[in-house]
Amino acid sequence: MTASGLLAEIGDVGRDPKRGGYSRHAFELPEQELRAWFGERALGLGLDVDTDHNGNIWAWWGAPGPDAVVTGSHLDSVPGGGAFDGPLGVVSALSAVETLRERGFRPGKPFAVVVFAEEEGGRFGVPCLGSRLLTGTIDADKARGLRDADGVTFAEAAAKSGFDPSLAGPDPERLGLIGRFLELHVEQGRGLIDLGSPVAVGSTVIAHGRWRFSFTGQGNHAGATLIEDRADPMLPAARTVTAARRIAKSRRAARATVGRLVPTPGGTNVIASTVDLWLDARVPGDGTRALVDDIVDAARQAAKEEGCRVEVTRESYSGDVVFDDALRRDLGEWLGGPPELPTGAGHDAAILAGFVPAGMLYVRNPTGISHSPEEFAEAGDVEAGANALTDVLERLAR
Amino acid sequence: MTASGLLAEIGDVGRDPKRGGYSRHAFELPEQELRAWFGERALGLGLDVDTDHNGNIWAWWGAPGPDAVVTGSHLDSVPGGGAFDGPLGVVSALSAVETLRERGFRPGKPFAVVVFAEEEGGRFGVPCLGSRLLTGTIDADKARGLRDADGVTFAEAAAKSGFDPSLAGPDPERLGLIGRFLELHVEQGRGLIDLGSPVAVGSTVIAHGRWRFSFTGQGNHAGATLIEDRADPMLPAARTVTAARRIAKSRRAARATVGRLVPTPGGTNVIASTVDLWLDARVPGDGTRALVDDIVDAARQAAKEEGCRVEVTRESYSGDVVFDDALRRDLGEWLGGPPELPTGAGHDAAILAGFVPAGMLYVRNPTGISHSPEEFAEAGDVEAGANALTDVLERLAR
Repeated sequence: MTASGLLAEIGDVGRDPKRGGYSRHAFELPEQELRAWFGERALGLGLDVDTDHNGNIWAWWGAPGPDAVVTGSHLDSVPGGGAFDGPLGVVSALSAVETLRERGFRPGKPFAVVVFAEEEGGRFGVPCLGSRLLTGTIDADKARGLRDADGVTFAEAAAKSGFDPSLAGPDPERLGLIGRFLELHVEQGRGLIDLGSPVAVGSTVIAHGRWRFSFTGQGNHAGATLIEDRADPMLPAARTVTAARRIAKSRRAARATVGRLVPTPGGTNVIASTVDLWLDARVPGDGTRALVDDIVDAARQAAKEEGCRVEVTRESYSGDVVFDDALRRDLGEWLGGPPELPTGAGHDAAILAGFVPAGMLYVRNPTGISHSPEEFAEAGDVEAGANALTDVLERLAR
Repeated sequence: MTASGLLAEIGDVGRDPKRGGYSRHAFELPEQELRAWFGERALGLGLDVDTDHNGNIWAWWGAPGPDAVVTGSHLDSVPGGGAFDGPLGVVSALSAVETLRERGFRPGKPFAVVVFAEEEGGRFGVPCLGSRLLTGTIDADKARGLRDADGVTFAEAAAKSGFDPSLAGPDPERLGLIGRFLELHVEQGRGLIDLGSPVAVGSTVIAHGRWRFSFTGQGNHAGATLIEDRADPMLPAARTVTAARRIAKSRRAARATVGRLVPTPGGTNVIASTVDLWLDARVPGDGTRALVDDIVDAARQAAKEEGCRVEVTRESYSGDVVFDDALRRDLGEWLGGPPELPTGAGHDAAILAGFVPAGMLYVRNPTGISHSPEEFAEAGDVEAGANALTDVLERLAR
């Protein structure tokens, strides 16, 4: 089965009629359906499937053991996301196992395909939650207490889906088995378009984090309340959006985004009582802190001028990542010198890179658009990516 | 039963654990429960209850007929609204009927208590939907096609609740029965606080309307997309919020509010592809149009600068209303000269005022806060309002 064929099998799961694209969030029905589908497919390839204490699924080719070659990605999506971000790495891994079997290859090292849980943070807010829990990069109690938009905690959702959240947390034994981790992913920018190559090797991931700004004012009637009597938290929230853009624009390669903003109660004829917004900020090196500090200052000033309060909470942060030098060199050599590509997108491979040798392969995206229904990769490029993954896995697992 | 006692009976219906206060939206369960409760209470008072083709409930004391005295308000709320806005007028009317019966009063004219549907527009976006349909102030096909936040139409929701939406529309026969309409309502500003009176007579309602601004940009990845490659609709949306405030502030007694703003898809690590926001704008006289035009210009300019598009749709508009002169004079005389009060809040009485003699009574609000869980009226003021309503109904229905 080709990677494209496998992608087509799940093409109807979790479609979002409102936003377009896919909404496949941790522990919700479409994501569970994808998990079950992965398990069946892996069993069909003769792999042994188990789910770890953090909701990540492992499919082993042969017995688990140390110095394992591990590859995979994730099946969850952002709200209204594309078909490739995550699933492409999973289907390419399954397709690679099938091809290697057809070639008569038998791995000389332990070998596993992994599906990480809640990579996007689309439901509970913290990206790469499964790999963060596995590596102890997030406190397990903090993770259990994370809430979705309806106030349901990670622990409650996990328990409801038949998974015991009390066991979640660092898993040094399992982490210690990984000798090399390799993640294939659709490219999420325009980096490969002009380079004439369908595949690139990942070089770096820039530092990134998420901050929640909660503005509080005085809810009131939109008609009966004079402008001078208002403490409307929508005003400082809006000024924070424009300040984030202005401040990011003044710094090289900095990105600041507000993609989520929730006024409460959210009535048309109601002055909001609170507005929550989430800032996604990324600057190469150690500049993210200073960028966010300046945006927080602007938010506090705007809140003060409107008679509102603001509380800022850091929800996640990851520093710059450089993927393993030796693995990058090997990948480049084995694939005939494809381009190396830095990215502003976070990945489970970047979390694991702090603990084990990890690397990434990117597949060309003809528009650069990602986290959108328009995200795309040509079928030929998808197969080129799967073939590249197959070839390097064969060498790694010899 | 006192008005406060009746309010207490419905004190647990439709509480909103997330926003605080109450969320009682048209055709949703809590609103249906309130309708059923009203029907039982009215039957218990010996009234004959029927629901018109537009979802408004009428409870008749004696036979329906021309020159009727009609009083009432609404039971629906804004999202996360208070306990008084709407229900206070309904419970005061029920309490008045009971008191009049106890006094041995028998109306010399047809008499009805009415509950109007979807007064807040909290679900389908158009305020006073029930009274607009009754009076033909909104096209019935337009009303049937209105959608809630989940995309459900008014027609679908009505049909699901057992009400035939194909019959909705102008009802000149029923409207023609109304001789006088009187609505009691909690005051939604600070107008009565310093006047030393628990009750006021309504004088005017300022012109008001709702406009939807839909900004479209390019959804994309928040980390991988450089600032210079973005067309992020959150930026012009935020600039429209600040422009609305700036423009309203420069005009006397103008109000402009953005209380509802929805980015799609709404992921933290996702540049939004669209942002919808709703502008509530009110200016005494004919200034609303010019105010909105200036805000639309600012929105278009901001959209253009970000490489986004914006579409603006007017969802509703009502001109200035002056309540019936003769009725105001009578109310003032019978109540011993209470203050007269203008308001920036819209009401069903203001819709009806274009067709039949209509008036309003306001009950003091010690903070002026409304459309919020903190909305309040002292028990003594509630009873003063109900007593005032009882006395004037007795005179009107002689």
